[in-house]
Amino acid sequence: MKDKYTIGLDYGTLSGRGILVRCSDGEVIGCEAKEYPHGVMTEKLPNGDEILPSEWCLEHPKDYLDVLEDVIVRLIQKSNVDKEDIIAIGVDFTACTVLPIDEDGLPLCMKKEFSGKRNAYVKLWKHHGAQKQADYINQVLEKLNLSHSARFGGSVSPEVLIPKVLETIEEDIEIYEKSAEILEAGDWITRIITGSHKRSCSMAAYKAWWNQEDGYPDTELYKSINPRIENIVQEKLTEDICGIGEEIGTLSKEWAAKLGLVEGIPVAPAIIDSHAGVPGSGVRRETQAMLVLGTSSVIVGLSRNPFSHKGIYGAVKDAIVPGYYALESGLAAVGDLFGWFANNCIPANYYDEAQKKNVDVFDLLNEKAECLERGGTGLLVLDWWNGNKTPYVDGNLAGAIIGLTLNTKPEEIYLALIESTAFGTKVILDLYKGAGVKIDEIVVSGGIALKNPTLMQVYADVLGIDLKLAKSSQAAALGSAIYATLAAGSKRGGYDDYQEAVMCMSEVKSQIYHFNLENKTKYDKLYKVYQKYSSLIGQEGKKILHELHMLKKF
Amino acid sequence: MKDKYTIGLDYGTLSGRGILVRCSDGEVIGCEAKEYPHGVMTEKLPNGDEILPSEWCLEHPKDYLDVLEDVIVRLIQKSNVDKEDIIAIGVDFTACTVLPIDEDGLPLCMKKEFSGKRNAYVKLWKHHGAQKQADYINQVLEKLNLSHSARFGGSVSPEVLIPKVLETIEEDIEIYEKSAEILEAGDWITRIITGSHKRSCSMAAYKAWWNQEDGYPDTELYKSINPRIENIVQEKLTEDICGIGEEIGTLSKEWAAKLGLVEGIPVAPAIIDSHAGVPGSGVRRETQAMLVLGTSSVIVGLSRNPFSHKGIYGAVKDAIVPGYYALESGLAAVGDLFGWFANNCIPANYYDEAQKKNVDVFDLLNEKAECLERGGTGLLVLDWWNGNKTPYVDGNLAGAIIGLTLNTKPEEIYLALIESTAFGTKVILDLYKGAGVKIDEIVVSGGIALKNPTLMQVYADVLGIDLKLAKSSQAAALGSAIYATLAAGSKRGGYDDYQEAVMCMSEVKSQIYHFNLENKTKYDKLYKVYQKYSSLIGQEGKKILHELHMLKKF
Repeated sequence: MKDKYTIGLDYGTLSGRGILVRCSDGEVIGCEAKEYPHGVMTEKLPNGDEILPSEWCLEHPKDYLDVLEDVIVRLIQKSNVDKEDIIAIGVDFTACTVLPIDEDGLPLCMKKEFSGKRNAYVKLWKHHGAQKQADYINQVLEKLNLSHSARFGGSVSPEVLIPKVLETIEEDIEIYEKSAEILEAGDWITRIITGSHKRSCSMAAYKAWWNQEDGYPDTELYKSINPRIENIVQEKLTEDICGIGEEIGTLSKEWAAKLGLVEGIPVAPAIIDSHAGVPGSGVRRETQAMLVLGTSSVIVGLSRNPFSHKGIYGAVKDAIVPGYYALESGLAAVGDLFGWFANNCIPANYYDEAQKKNVDVFDLLNEKAECLERGGTGLLVLDWWNGNKTPYVDGNLAGAIIGLTLNTKPEEIYLALIESTAFGTKVILDLYKGAGVKIDEIVVSGGIALKNPTLMQVYADVLGIDLKLAKSSQAAALGSAIYATLAAGSKRGGYDDYQEAVMCMSEVKSQIYHFNLENKTKYDKLYKVYQKYSSLIGQEGKKILHELHMLKKF
Repeated sequence: MKDKYTIGLDYGTLSGRGILVRCSDGEVIGCEAKEYPHGVMTEKLPNGDEILPSEWCLEHPKDYLDVLEDVIVRLIQKSNVDKEDIIAIGVDFTACTVLPIDEDGLPLCMKKEFSGKRNAYVKLWKHHGAQKQADYINQVLEKLNLSHSARFGGSVSPEVLIPKVLETIEEDIEIYEKSAEILEAGDWITRIITGSHKRSCSMAAYKAWWNQEDGYPDTELYKSINPRIENIVQEKLTEDICGIGEEIGTLSKEWAAKLGLVEGIPVAPAIIDSHAGVPGSGVRRETQAMLVLGTSSVIVGLSRNPFSHKGIYGAVKDAIVPGYYALESGLAAVGDLFGWFANNCIPANYYDEAQKKNVDVFDLLNEKAECLERGGTGLLVLDWWNGNKTPYVDGNLAGAIIGLTLNTKPEEIYLALIESTAFGTKVILDLYKGAGVKIDEIVVSGGIALKNPTLMQVYADVLGIDLKLAKSSQAAALGSAIYATLAAGSKRGGYDDYQEAVMCMSEVKSQIYHFNLENKTKYDKLYKVYQKYSSLIGQEGKKILHELHMLKKF
């Protein structure tokens, strides 16, 4: 049988990319990317004069279509692959990245009458305009004694669907009323190319309170939040949810022509981008976890049982790996934190020294940090520069550096920053452990994993777990291509089984960061100090940090 | 009557200076300075190979004599003043800066047999080798129910006399036994030039537990600490204490010849350098306070009643201003903190921008900080980079920056650092206020006061008190010269009365930093947050910070 291929489309925050992958062994035949022409809109609308409120992050849905056509057409042009041998498409997307559309699937912001209205655009996952609405929903859940329900992930973040919709209702009711559907951008893409109104279980589960056993919450709950959304499921969402590994629809004639593909090939349901990294980085065993180290981090573990905790979402079965509940959490800032440090805290002479040595300033910091004894800087950092997700789900918490003296050096602060993000990761893995998940290997992907061996070793030592690197630098896109092979099934040249597909198509690099037992022992001591400060400042002293936040003027 | 003059000698940490001052109006006729040839010895002894323990800070007493001859001879040579018109000498010195001497007044370290022994040298005020001994003494005082006795300043610091002597006994008993006296370097200087064995009440009171009412503690107390020091007062110190404004002795024939002065002129008792700044900066009213902003800070207030608190020394009458108890405290790091920030935290592009604008980097930071709303950075800094003196007397506390986010800018951290040292100052002034001291004006001296108007305004706004600048940039030396005029008395052309001397010889600049009521209101809110964090981290969470300190390896 001739080699078969699938396309994995990966929609990130600033750009989208597509890869063409061979089904037999996961070999990446081609990769094309394109930045979103409008980028992330935080200041104003296209051609608009209105200044957006701070905390707003919008995108333009037309950008997604531009990426779609551009990257797939280029992928096919540049490869020598026969279009007949491309058997399926998979999509991953940031989430909750949500937009209102009309009956024809046209985004309201692309209709002239709504193009000047901010609630008509795509609210990006990191749009934080709906904090007020999230706070309110949490109050309602508390009254209804539902705060601890696994369905809501312990506490509702402003990043999920209902707060974002409520914000639209409160700001601009017309947008809500005129929309035929409100949906994830990932679902919108599959809808556009297949015509299917089904939605992905991935986003419904993790961002919209759906689960396999009970579907969406009862109308009563929505009514308690706001009478206007009593029937939101029936009116703006849909209960027709497509599972992972299934086919959400087939490529339409119109889009097959536009993209240069064969009509009728299966399209997999969209999956949250970071989750696509699970198969994409080779995670298939219960004892493996996936860690993505990017601007923020994502940590996914697999469990036979449902679990939830403030900031950990683990109530949905089959949403990433068939047969498992996937526990998901992460830190709100990792790469962003080091970027902040580089821009704001590294003194001039360090840049001079790096330039003289002809190395990156992080290489220089790593070189200096390697000379420091682990856990011995006398510093303790709380890694909450972008708020805390787990264990507190509190966006008003902020970072702290404690233990500074006149002898403190930049590389000590740098090492303490790395250590703090490792401790924040350990908090999450310890919670997973408490849920019965026994992790003996972590597969790491993302830019930092490849670029920063000092950080990787600190993570291994703090966690006391060996770290492996994902082989693919495009783990999410590869994961989407893998899900596409499952949608195609073995009869078309794909796979019927997740384990088999991942085993064949995805593997880890041979490079392993083994943890050092001596350093682990040191870090165990410092971790106790971290936990005490986390509790002192994030819990007992939470009100003080909130008071400080209230005084903030910038 | 011809103009009369006095000499003020000011012995600092790194250098000594002398000024020649006209008695009638305080005009400074000449100023000469000389650095100590050996500097501060923190690594090894002169010509020695032995590496000193960290925390050790020694000086060489010969340096003090070199300064003495050099600066006075130059002062007289360069001025057109007739030596007959120089009527007295005053001395200020860092304290507790202490050395062992033999019967002839020769420092043991200058005798060949002891020159290789570290305990034979001058232990500088900031020598911190005796923390263990201080901790032990505090335990003893607690057992004896004396912890809260005003005599001990609330808690014994490793910087005062008895811990330093105990360290010598424990390390090298021979030095203790072979010494005829152990005394302050300031007392040693007056002894050398006058032959008088009297000691200054200033250092005895603030550094050696003496007070005017009861003298030194009973032998029982010393015995409880260590039987070897039961009779330390009789054996190594002296009970012959000379009050401020008096004459400790007269210039010997030998030294008159060496210095080019007239034999028999009065010499004032040595006073602690920062205290000399009180008359030197024009403080003479009960409602004035003195603030010296240098590497660390000193805050002196005047009270009709004795007062003490952890980190505040205020149990001695007449030791600075006749008729008053002087309350003394300060922050352990001010200039040092900003120096640390400049060396370790200001990013390269700020230096570039400062260079382009042809300004100092602190000028640039001030310019940027001036655009920030007061108290609104969202940051809260605890200013304990060099430990905390008041209210906790805890050298194991360390600094903290809380409230960091991805949007935090260097100038915000800088402003928060300034604010934190102002809050630390407010803590002290609030304690003074609690003791009944009503301060309506603060006279500020020291390098930072002149160089940093942004900081001065923040202090005024935080404290809610107008700040004036001391006229003399040599406030301590001028103060010593003023004390010299009191030792001389009006019959020789000096003064009999402190108030009159200060009024005639010292005045404040006309420049005033008026506090801004709107900013004060904002800072009152942030100060409450500072107090809460001070308590949370410095008191309730003290053990955690100590644990962190114990893990420190550098």
